[in-house]
Amino acid sequence: MSGVFAHPWKGGLFADPEIADAFSPEAELAAMLRVEAAHARALGSEPAAIAIEAVRVMPQDLRAGMGSDGVPVPALVRALKEQILPDLHPFVHKGLTSQDVVDTAQALLFSNVNALFEKRISNLEMAFSDLIGREGSALLMGRTRMQAALAITVADRVETWRMPLDGLLTRLNGIAPMLTVLSAGGPVGLGLPKAHCQTMGQALGLSVPVKAPHAMRQALADYASWLSLVTGSLGKMGQDVALMAQQGIDELRLKNGGGSSAMPHKQNPVLAELLVTLARFNATQVSAMHQALVHEQERSGAAWSLEWMILPQMVQATGRALTAARTLLDSIDRIGSS
Amino acid sequence: MSGVFAHPWKGGLFADPEIADAFSPEAELAAMLRVEAAHARALGSEPAAIAIEAVRVMPQDLRAGMGSDGVPVPALVRALKEQILPDLHPFVHKGLTSQDVVDTAQALLFSNVNALFEKRISNLEMAFSDLIGREGSALLMGRTRMQAALAITVADRVETWRMPLDGLLTRLNGIAPMLTVLSAGGPVGLGLPKAHCQTMGQALGLSVPVKAPHAMRQALADYASWLSLVTGSLGKMGQDVALMAQQGIDELRLKNGGGSSAMPHKQNPVLAELLVTLARFNATQVSAMHQALVHEQERSGAAWSLEWMILPQMVQATGRALTAARTLLDSIDRIGSS
Amino acid sequence: MSGVFAHPWKGGLFADPEIADAFSPEAELAAMLRVEAAHARALGSEPAAIAIEAVRVMPQDLRAGMGSDGVPVPALVRALKEQILPDLHPFVHKGLTSQDVVDTAQALLFSNVNALFEKRISNLEMAFSDLIGREGSALLMGRTRMQAALAITVADRVETWRMPLDGLLTRLNGIAPMLTVLSAGGPVGLGLPKAHCQTMGQALGLSVPVKAPHAMRQALADYASWLSLVTGSLGKMGQDVALMAQQGIDELRLKNGGGSSAMPHKQNPVLAELLVTLARFNATQVSAMHQALVHEQERSGAAWSLEWMILPQMVQATGRALTAARTLLDSIDRIGSS
Amino acid sequence: MSGVFAHPWKGGLFADPEIADAFSPEAELAAMLRVEAAHARALGSEPAAIAIEAVRVMPQDLRAGMGSDGVPVPALVRALKEQILPDLHPFVHKGLTSQDVVDTAQALLFSNVNALFEKRISNLEMAFSDLIGREGSALLMGRTRMQAALAITVADRVETWRMPLDGLLTRLNGIAPMLTVLSAGGPVGLGLPKAHCQTMGQALGLSVPVKAPHAMRQALADYASWLSLVTGSLGKMGQDVALMAQQGIDELRLKNGGGSSAMPHKQNPVLAELLVTLARFNATQVSAMHQALVHEQERSGAAWSLEWMILPQMVQATGRALTAARTLLDSIDRIGSS
Repeated sequence: MSGVFAHPWKGGLFADPEIADAFSPEAELAAMLRVEAAHARALGSEPAAIAIEAVRVMPQDLRAGMGSDGVPVPALVRALKEQILPDLHPFVHKGLTSQDVVDTAQALLFSNVNALFEKRISNLEMAFSDLIGREGSALLMGRTRMQAALAITVADRVETWRMPLDGLLTRLNGIAPMLTVLSAGGPVGLGLPKAHCQTMGQALGLSVPVKAPHAMRQALADYASWLSLVTGSLGKMGQDVALMAQQGIDELRLKNGGGSSAMPHKQNPVLAELLVTLARFNATQVSAMHQALVHEQERSGAAWSLEWMILPQMVQATGRALTAARTLLDSIDRIGSS
Repeated sequence: MSGVFAHPWKGGLFADPEIADAFSPEAELAAMLRVEAAHARALGSEPAAIAIEAVRVMPQDLRAGMGSDGVPVPALVRALKEQILPDLHPFVHKGLTSQDVVDTAQALLFSNVNALFEKRISNLEMAFSDLIGREGSALLMGRTRMQAALAITVADRVETWRMPLDGLLTRLNGIAPMLTVLSAGGPVGLGLPKAHCQTMGQALGLSVPVKAPHAMRQALADYASWLSLVTGSLGKMGQDVALMAQQGIDELRLKNGGGSSAMPHKQNPVLAELLVTLARFNATQVSAMHQALVHEQERSGAAWSLEWMILPQMVQATGRALTAARTLLDSIDRIGSS
Repeated sequence: MSGVFAHPWKGGLFADPEIADAFSPEAELAAMLRVEAAHARALGSEPAAIAIEAVRVMPQDLRAGMGSDGVPVPALVRALKEQILPDLHPFVHKGLTSQDVVDTAQALLFSNVNALFEKRISNLEMAFSDLIGREGSALLMGRTRMQAALAITVADRVETWRMPLDGLLTRLNGIAPMLTVLSAGGPVGLGLPKAHCQTMGQALGLSVPVKAPHAMRQALADYASWLSLVTGSLGKMGQDVALMAQQGIDELRLKNGGGSSAMPHKQNPVLAELLVTLARFNATQVSAMHQALVHEQERSGAAWSLEWMILPQMVQATGRALTAARTLLDSIDRIGSS
Repeated sequence: MSGVFAHPWKGGLFADPEIADAFSPEAELAAMLRVEAAHARALGSEPAAIAIEAVRVMPQDLRAGMGSDGVPVPALVRALKEQILPDLHPFVHKGLTSQDVVDTAQALLFSNVNALFEKRISNLEMAFSDLIGREGSALLMGRTRMQAALAITVADRVETWRMPLDGLLTRLNGIAPMLTVLSAGGPVGLGLPKAHCQTMGQALGLSVPVKAPHAMRQALADYASWLSLVTGSLGKMGQDVALMAQQGIDELRLKNGGGSSAMPHKQNPVLAELLVTLARFNATQVSAMHQALVHEQERSGAAWSLEWMILPQMVQATGRALTAARTLLDSIDRIGSS
């Protein structure tokens, strides 16, 4: 069963192909192999690292192992050892635990999507500035509690869409160092030697925490909150656009509204509504990431698995909200009281 | 980006193939075509119905239309009309709206999965009864607030897993008639002629409500609650099993625990943890379905789309919890104080 | 810190005095004493029952005990024994556990509020019918995806507010028997003698389940879902009213909108917005009640306490939504396109 | 109806008197008066400011106005004008809107509670360090997926409770400047003169944002996330303690466990469970604060009121978690494998 993001037709509305690629199973698997290779290299075996990099594993190969072990890494390690000469085995996965590999690989993926998010948010902010430059002086009825209040300008309204983006970029810069970290805690989190971790961290472009965050998931919950701040901010814009586009209000006209199967005259503000949907989706999901903070002992299978169900979807929803906001903005044909 | 259910390796843990099939894009598309055919037939055109049934549309064909219209139906209707003789066009989709087709198709899918759920819950209940029959008289320490209290029997504990299943079946029978209904409201929900609806409902095995539930989503939120009651009930079992399997407690031993990449001696209670994860997942998602009750006017794109993001995943999580509970139960090697 | 319901001024907007009384600490305490008295009576000691009924305990007396024990009952039992002759002590609380008293007392309170809910929902349904009778034929623009679609009537829109109420009453009747039950499980839920439970149940007007639901919390989560269905249904009405009252739309005028400190000309649709707020509040809270289904072993202090934080507030929010909906409806000055 | 925090007996478990005082209606009212006085002073009228400071308003006086207006400020302004000479009226509330007063007053309260939080978190961190100093070298079984893994030390486990506190303090320092801001936007958020805002901000110890955050609620949602990070972090400790205190595990003994009404021998880990409860409570509530980001137009009554229902309770839950964690820590009688 595909969720909306990978669905053959719902994906036409919900998918963000760039994020989907960055978070694809192939990207995850490549990141896990990169972690194992960096580990072998830090253990001093360039040949083992090169061998790991040359290994051919397909995502499907890890399926049965995932089903029995609850994590893909035992199957991955078996696959590595099958394809690598036995005398290199001592450098494969030695001292690591499954969570090290999965969490570190995930950190690598976050690095990539965060770079995308940063670029998109900056671009969106500039696009809002452009809109303000072009149409900012047009008049608009200011509305409070859904009632007409006093006249404002388009700039006044659009600033409430634009201004939070700045803060979100700053917040992301604050979160990223805690998020894009190496996990090298070993079976019960006691950690591999410091020098080893530094070498791995440097090779992978990840910072090295004092202690592997196996059971300290604050950075992930914080990231989830940030993702939901992004979608919530854009959801406010979507709600405003949908309200402005109402007949009788007529403060905004879109170029390419969605068509109706029954009423050809309609121009539905599909992307504006989508922004509201994605905002409410992430506002729901963020709760699960906070529930997962109750992560018992050295590793909680239950809390950790919950993250897998939630966080990639939040990333995808956030990516899509950013592209939808941009498309929506670009499709504004007219804004301001007519 | 695939969610955990359709993920090439995470699916090894999370997927429920039977549910995935019942809710696949192909099944959805077939259901939509079935709805359009039943509609044409109720309009009196058997040839149009047969033509619709013979149409070849691929899920991917609806993708672009979904992206622009926010619903797959305008693209579907275009595809139908391209393949059907023009003189039959008056019987294609006439008077229906997108939501009629999507919601009715979904009702057909729910019928199918509910039959699966019913069978699985009954079987699980019997399996619990069997366990009680076999091991029920063994002793167990009753624990309250995570502290040893007084001795109980295995039957006493297992009854708290078994007994709710009965109530859940009763509840499903109460919900189903509201859930598996025909939507034939037309563009603004005024409804097609009563006789027409009765004919369609009969053909599709769906009941016909007084008014199409376009903007009255109570049955869906209620169903979501039911799904979460199922996973929550099984999550309690999962939590109990994980606690019983602790070394030092040793009140339960599993046959096939999950392996560890670092500690070959471990037998991880992977499925017990999975039940907790799925319970907390659905307990989160149910919130979004209740948020979607605030469904403005005759149709809310924002609230409706939120359902698409949430409900199929809740169905899938519920299906998986039922299979996992059964496998877990069957893998109990020993239960009771040793 | 008072929440909004008991807050000296916020209560002016959020409080529902009738529900507040039915759920007051005094009512809770009286219900706990009623349970202990019924228990003593079922044990065969009318004098002990009378003595319990005559005991004077103040809510504040249970505070310190609650702090140390996490439940009020040990302190309550101590207070009872201080005021009751020692030879009656054998009939006080004998064989019961704290959860029996707290849960059964809560069931008594639910009985009372459900009677209020039933009456209010019936009355609201009639009031909607009256509105349909008076204004139902007036025209209204049907709106889908926040865009004007085709003309409908006031009756068509108001029916989407009215019709779900019927189903909610039916659902309540289905839930109530599971909710208003006796808990007499004793320390680890093994249960008091069946005849004893029957006598207690009869005296208290509660049904007697096969097993005390100490660790089976489905009925409470289901009730929470029902409460949120009620507020969600009314939230849809609130959202519609707020949208209809917009200047430029002008399909509804309220008699007594809220005043603004800055703009005396405004008539804010305060109660319409309140309905949306209460809907989103309960839609959030329902998640916690489902999380609490993961109730480990014979009694989970953590999951049980979570219910105390959530459910009474959901009841209160639901009560207030019902009174606010009624007041809002009665303050509709004009409805329909002008 | 009192929630658990202000409940006469449940408060014995849930209340945090220091936070309750800092967030009491009296404190809120005093803060609103402080805002109005600072405003009058910035308008240049010291006599009006002094008169406002001398006004006698009781919380209850705002109740009826809150009920009709949905905000307390129109009633507050009326009360001020009744008690202040008419020639000073031009300096009372002039140019402000209700949201300015309510939001700025709230910012003042946040300043106070954040100072408390900062102190408590620092103290707790030191107490964890002390525990590590005293008992850190004792052995403990490291557990992953609820199964015994390899031996660790008490220090290893306690570090996962202590280390996140540091990051939480840093995060608070990052959030506070966005949170403790002046709102002086006027009716539709256009803002009062910059110099006026600077004067007010300085007098109140609040920073002055470029634009009043009437409809940009990111800082509040971010704060809610932070509150839930705190309770989630402590919830992890609570869960660990409850697991360690199990008979059969016996890795931790508490001095003052809670008593049972049925089993005098039990020592229930009440505060450990409370930490889990508070974590799951806040993890639920945070969702509503993110839903409230969809704040339409210049002011949303619905989204704004939702914040009032949620945020003060999250603050209170967080305060209580911090005191409970400290008490729990101090009541550890023994830790480590015996």
